[in-house]
Amino acid sequence: MTRAILTLNAGSSSLKLGLFDEALAPLATAHVDRLGAPEGSLNLKDAEGKAMPVPHLGPDDFATHTLALRSALGAFRTDMPELEIVAIGHRIVHGGTAHAEPEKVTDVLMDHLERLNPFAPLHQPHNLAGVRAAIEAFPGVPNVACFDTAFHRGHPFVDDTYALPRHYYEKGVRRYGFHGLSYTYIDGVLAAEEPELRAGRVVIAHLGSGASICAVHNGQSISCTMGFSTLSGLPMGTRAGELDAGVVLYLMDQEKMNAEDITELLFKRSGLIGMSGVSNDMRTLEASKSPHAAEAIDYFCHRVKREIASLAAAMGGMDALVFCGGVGENSSHVRAAVCEGLDWAGITLDQTANLAHAREISTGRVAVRVIPTNEEVVIARAAKDALHI
Amino acid sequence: MTRAILTLNAGSSSLKLGLFDEALAPLATAHVDRLGAPEGSLNLKDAEGKAMPVPHLGPDDFATHTLALRSALGAFRTDMPELEIVAIGHRIVHGGTAHAEPEKVTDVLMDHLERLNPFAPLHQPHNLAGVRAAIEAFPGVPNVACFDTAFHRGHPFVDDTYALPRHYYEKGVRRYGFHGLSYTYIDGVLAAEEPELRAGRVVIAHLGSGASICAVHNGQSISCTMGFSTLSGLPMGTRAGELDAGVVLYLMDQEKMNAEDITELLFKRSGLIGMSGVSNDMRTLEASKSPHAAEAIDYFCHRVKREIASLAAAMGGMDALVFCGGVGENSSHVRAAVCEGLDWAGITLDQTANLAHAREISTGRVAVRVIPTNEEVVIARAAKDALHI
Repeated sequence: MTRAILTLNAGSSSLKLGLFDEALAPLATAHVDRLGAPEGSLNLKDAEGKAMPVPHLGPDDFATHTLALRSALGAFRTDMPELEIVAIGHRIVHGGTAHAEPEKVTDVLMDHLERLNPFAPLHQPHNLAGVRAAIEAFPGVPNVACFDTAFHRGHPFVDDTYALPRHYYEKGVRRYGFHGLSYTYIDGVLAAEEPELRAGRVVIAHLGSGASICAVHNGQSISCTMGFSTLSGLPMGTRAGELDAGVVLYLMDQEKMNAEDITELLFKRSGLIGMSGVSNDMRTLEASKSPHAAEAIDYFCHRVKREIASLAAAMGGMDALVFCGGVGENSSHVRAAVCEGLDWAGITLDQTANLAHAREISTGRVAVRVIPTNEEVVIARAAKDALHI
Repeated sequence: MTRAILTLNAGSSSLKLGLFDEALAPLATAHVDRLGAPEGSLNLKDAEGKAMPVPHLGPDDFATHTLALRSALGAFRTDMPELEIVAIGHRIVHGGTAHAEPEKVTDVLMDHLERLNPFAPLHQPHNLAGVRAAIEAFPGVPNVACFDTAFHRGHPFVDDTYALPRHYYEKGVRRYGFHGLSYTYIDGVLAAEEPELRAGRVVIAHLGSGASICAVHNGQSISCTMGFSTLSGLPMGTRAGELDAGVVLYLMDQEKMNAEDITELLFKRSGLIGMSGVSNDMRTLEASKSPHAAEAIDYFCHRVKREIASLAAAMGGMDALVFCGGVGENSSHVRAAVCEGLDWAGITLDQTANLAHAREISTGRVAVRVIPTNEEVVIARAAKDALHI
């Protein structure tokens, strides 16, 4: 019998699964893409990240979140026939103002979380569909919800509000911040391995296809570039990031676009893909000869640089800068471009270490680190802790 | 005969007039408030800023821009019966991508400028109404248009674009920047009086009821907190400033607000008045005992601080910081709160000099200055130069 904790990150057309033993050692991962479409696909990797053989599956096997989840688990079982899921941890984008600690899923909690759908319409409903699929696929197995907003609860008011009439703050129009599971992981690594750095003012840049940066002072999130929604702050693979609200008004008023059109434009057709016309993927852009691809990379790095300085100002300075996420961990070009010209803020990159993707890549006053993040293990640990496994 | 250059800054319900002799010495100013309303009013000041007696005027005298302009000029003439207007310079908020240098007003230019109305719907039509009123009131006198966007032409691409599909940039969705006449004035003062500072990287904070900050490197604007519209960047008296575009989508989608409602909310009911519920005026907030007033001030100062750091990053550092505008010139509290905790960026305030509103208020590496701005004289000079007076 292999007793395992399952982690689930459910999007609109994808499922990411992680499998951990009860000591939180990774067992395997699965990735379902194009869920609901005839060309749905499944990839499996073992604990070392090596691709595993995938059983033959038909289009029906990916028709719903529940079917896709069963397909992925069936695939795990070809290798681990004795697999028993004892707990399931879910990544939930939004916990609102009331939910910060990981919580065991109940009908009451699901009802609360559904009410937050309007705050994250592109993520929350799919996350909750994943929870429902897990309840259906694994009756009797406890589910734990882990919130991407949780790490950011407790922002100082000046970094929690917008300059709107006050009742908007009261009804929840706040700077929530996201990617909290990633920031929790990085904060935990620093706490364990460099506690003196962690006690200071740390800027963590989570740069992936979704991207944000967080100012963390002694483990407490102070401010995050993502605020009310997952749209703001940095440009991302397909999202615009920081945008003059006047542009949205212009799109409404002059281009007669409705909320759905604008959502689609700003979340799915902007960012790196919108600027470059080439790709939403940084690796593809870096390999491209298109001048528009180069401009998209330049813009991304410039905005990261400016936000790092702004977040340092929010803390009264910066003692460490950590890069994580797919781009942050793997693009030495992005890290170099971001850090260039930040010497006045105490950042000097060790170019050789940076090219080697070393963990310590600075020679200046500010410690610059590259630390691979791991949101899944944060979810698995939270599920384990919440259920006292 | 007193030959004079008139400057005109026309808003939706106000007119600001400046009168200069041909050597650009100030003669008088006039301020019409509540234009178009029965309680319209006129204030006159002499060259030293002392209030001048105002002739009795009825409500009809402020019914239109043209009538208000005639009323103001009539009032000037009670003191200067020989006054002859030889040129009129106009503050025009938006020159688009094609108009940077001050230009003599022609039908063709007016047609071009009208096409920019959708880019600045709350300002541009009123500015142009002022030009038309001047043409009507002073037939034969040449008019010159001076653009608030002009100083910012030539931003590097990364500070000129948003991360939208590229055709939006081509059709004019760009980071224009505003308050350019004020920045031109401050840049001119530095060029004349501290040329070594001006040759470096200067952050100019124009803090008034409208507010923005500009990064200027050797006289060239690099980036401005106001971008496409006059809404973005800093919170202002009644404007929200930086806002997650997701909030606008939420207002559309969940609160069923249309473009007009949202424009009214974000431009007129947000910012200091929205947060405080007390006033849009920093002096009133500083005198208030309301905790919400204090929070609005804190938020304003915090955002200014963060934007200063972000703009420094856009230039690779900062050699000088200049405060100007009503709040920047007169609130030692705001200046102190903004500079607090920016020592890592080279800013240390001389608290005594700051309290005294001295021109030089720093003891650190970054030169911090308080310089009263003067947009009117920039307009008058531009009119004089454009017309070879």
